[in-house]
Amino acid sequence: MFNRREFLHSGTATVLGGLGAINIPSLFPEAELNKAENALAGSNRMKLSFKPFTLELKHAFGVSVNTRTTTPIVHTVIEYGKYKGYGEASMPPYLGESQETVMKFLAKVDLSKYDNPFQLETILAEVDALEAGNTAAKAAVDIALHDLVGKLIGQPLYNMWGFDKSKTTYTSFTIGIDTPEVVRQKVKEVVDDFGVLKIKLGRDNDKEMIETVRSLTDKPLTADANQGWKDKQYALDMAHYMKEKGFLYIEQPMHKDMVDEHAWLTERSPLPILGDESMKRLSDLIKYRGAYSGIVLKLMKTTGLREAHKMIAVARAFGMKVMIGCMTETSCAITAAAHLTPMVDWADLDGAMLSKNDNFKGMTVNKGKIILPDRPGIGVVPV
Amino acid sequence: MFNRREFLHSGTATVLGGLGAINIPSLFPEAELNKAENALAGSNRMKLSFKPFTLELKHAFGVSVNTRTTTPIVHTVIEYGKYKGYGEASMPPYLGESQETVMKFLAKVDLSKYDNPFQLETILAEVDALEAGNTAAKAAVDIALHDLVGKLIGQPLYNMWGFDKSKTTYTSFTIGIDTPEVVRQKVKEVVDDFGVLKIKLGRDNDKEMIETVRSLTDKPLTADANQGWKDKQYALDMAHYMKEKGFLYIEQPMHKDMVDEHAWLTERSPLPILGDESMKRLSDLIKYRGAYSGIVLKLMKTTGLREAHKMIAVARAFGMKVMIGCMTETSCAITAAAHLTPMVDWADLDGAMLSKNDNFKGMTVNKGKIILPDRPGIGVVPV
Repeated sequence: MFNRREFLHSGTATVLGGLGAINIPSLFPEAELNKAENALAGSNRMKLSFKPFTLELKHAFGVSVNTRTTTPIVHTVIEYGKYKGYGEASMPPYLGESQETVMKFLAKVDLSKYDNPFQLETILAEVDALEAGNTAAKAAVDIALHDLVGKLIGQPLYNMWGFDKSKTTYTSFTIGIDTPEVVRQKVKEVVDDFGVLKIKLGRDNDKEMIETVRSLTDKPLTADANQGWKDKQYALDMAHYMKEKGFLYIEQPMHKDMVDEHAWLTERSPLPILGDESMKRLSDLIKYRGAYSGIVLKLMKTTGLREAHKMIAVARAFGMKVMIGCMTETSCAITAAAHLTPMVDWADLDGAMLSKNDNFKGMTVNKGKIILPDRPGIGVVPV
Repeated sequence: MFNRREFLHSGTATVLGGLGAINIPSLFPEAELNKAENALAGSNRMKLSFKPFTLELKHAFGVSVNTRTTTPIVHTVIEYGKYKGYGEASMPPYLGESQETVMKFLAKVDLSKYDNPFQLETILAEVDALEAGNTAAKAAVDIALHDLVGKLIGQPLYNMWGFDKSKTTYTSFTIGIDTPEVVRQKVKEVVDDFGVLKIKLGRDNDKEMIETVRSLTDKPLTADANQGWKDKQYALDMAHYMKEKGFLYIEQPMHKDMVDEHAWLTERSPLPILGDESMKRLSDLIKYRGAYSGIVLKLMKTTGLREAHKMIAVARAFGMKVMIGCMTETSCAITAAAHLTPMVDWADLDGAMLSKNDNFKGMTVNKGKIILPDRPGIGVVPV
């Protein structure tokens, strides 16, 4: 036997019962119960906490600008009553944020002043307005808040957004810049498990990288030059060569400030040219839209899910392609991003798979296809 | 005392219990219960029904193109298990849809093939693709589906979207084109209850309409010319005159095809120029954005809430103003639109108040401020 009032304070019903000022009369028809619930929840305040973590990479990871073996992370938790929303900031060192800057920013975020976690739009706009930049720190709040709200309503994020989880994309797996021997080893390790491989280009061995990978697989390839190419004609020649070699797109061929050169390239390229370093936030999408065929979304650039979601609407309105990528991140932030994949063309969400001490369980990959967890919120579990 | 299984099938818990294929293990930890719930919901299929209704207006309502005393409506219901989502199509006669065309379209919509009402993006895209046009008919499906999903998760739409209900706008109240005597009477009836009055212009008595209203109140005014002005210089002269008279904006001064003339006007006008007939859907917003300072959203043009929501993101990205308006509609569709008002600059959601046989209870207005209901979904109740 089960007492109704007890039930309201445990298991199922507190999911609805902890909602504070929100009046849901059809669910709690008894005025007394409503009052009790409201009184309980009235004392709930969101509480943000955070801690640093060092993500260790399986292989030294080379991109056009550097090579590293770890990525600094800050994990966030937003507690509200008995619920916990999880978030994450990832700070590849060349992007300007660090564990110190992120924790300094998060210390300024006072969520206790908001009565209602559901007011994502207001809360996240105010967090964004606290200080310029700090996009990874802001993402850590955004992700945790989305996770919390999903848990409060008992629904996975893909349901909150009305997306079809069967329409997730395939993810590519990224091969960093390295010697042919190491590249061959990396490709062999993963080629059977992924439908698409992504190659990092932009140093002085582009064709060697491509030939090495192509010699091992016929699968489609994608490429990220990370601003590494200096010359638009070289970029166009590469685009033609890579079209022949079965590539799907090229990310950020030249420096982000080379706007006219990218526009020139986009107009002529046989492959879609995606803006990544150029296309951080919604304002960049408006500013640089003419220069690219598509955008690369990363939660650590967009300040999180909410702005990324808006950027998809705007990019689609312009008829642009959308790719969603990641930094090296744990399965926490990666899974958050994966909930957007039913709305994008391509994904590169391998960031957690590149690591050897991932401390969350979340999305999985089956032969490259992204499988979203069905748990409420972003659906991750600390491990 | 309350048996848990009974509880799951009544009151609170069936809100969560009817979700079918959706796996929410943390809410129903007992495997047996999960199975029972899933079996129950597995037989649930969405069922769309609809019926015509004639909305009677309190006053004959004159706009630039015609005057009428009724508006044809089609009400929709989407049933899913024990839940009902309500929707509505409103068809002012000069816009091309009718009860016949709407019911013919709705008869083609087969929602029984979808397992999961949460897949709004997929379902509504497929409904949209059934046939071109039919925007009011599509809105009737969109509104009912949003209402249903909100009820399934037990949350009002403003919470689903992360909006702050305290940030709803004020609504204007619209004064149709009429003789000075009737206009005076209409203004006196409502002026104390609204902070902003909207005047319909575009026949041959613009200044008379304005002078008549201005002689009775100092409150801010807004204007809708409904494409009635033929000449850009006249429109600019009126904009200067109306700026002096305390207007906030002008809707659709000239014919929607006069794109260059609107761009010319927008560049020079001291008042924001909003596109209404020009700005039906997201594609129009991209096409005509240069010609207007802002857009007028109406669910009957946008195909409903989902596209309207995206249009707000896109308009904001362009730095454009957003107004949300309505046709003469019942409180069903009006309340649906009202959930978007925390994200817009201005609202004109008086459509239900202009009628004398409104058959839904929903949003209310307190001295012009929109008050959203706290019930799940769009929060309307048939009366």
